[in-house]
Amino acid sequence: MIKVSVMYPNSPDATFDIDYYCNAHVPMVGEKLGAALKSVSVDSGLAGSGPGESALFLAMGHLIFDSVEDFQHAFGPKTEEIMSDLANFTNIQPQIQISEIKA
Amino acid sequence: MIKVSVMYPNSPDATFDIDYYCNAHVPMVGEKLGAALKSVSVDSGLAGSGPGESALFLAMGHLIFDSVEDFQHAFGPKTEEIMSDLANFTNIQPQIQISEIKA
Repeated sequence: MIKVSVMYPNSPDATFDIDYYCNAHVPMVGEKLGAALKSVSVDSGLAGSGPGESALFLAMGHLIFDSVEDFQHAFGPKTEEIMSDLANFTNIQPQIQISEIKA
Repeated sequence: MIKVSVMYPNSPDATFDIDYYCNAHVPMVGEKLGAALKSVSVDSGLAGSGPGESALFLAMGHLIFDSVEDFQHAFGPKTEEIMSDLANFTNIQPQIQISEIKA
């Protein structure tokens, strides 16, 4: 199983509408990617590790697929449709990472 | 539910022993934190989003607790013991983020 983490870095002028993300963006992505997408989880950044420290990422979405190939086949043809929705909930350019789920 | 993400940034000279992490560090952390720790997941970075791009983080450990208070009560007294094990598997200073699990 692999995880595609879409991470939205925090900054002083960053905006992120977590309600739109959870209630509109993630369901739309689920519809576009179909059965290849096994599950999604969403984290909303609360804090860093030190007192008064901000979260590094305002939000993170984690998408689970059986393999990198499954992700690429499902996401490739839908990239533009999915990415064009970002302006509806954030001014942040997300950072994307693909990981192997070890545990 | 909250998630404490311990993220190990990638860099050219970064080292990380994922086998030690999964088989020794995470079990030790589980023992120290006890019942407050609800579950742990481990991601091993494979790639970034572009062709040939490296993963932003070599590894990420995600620890789930019922609340920030539960995490603080469990982790506080054990911080030194847990952090002193890092030298056994990495030369990276991890970045830590606390998130609310929205989905």
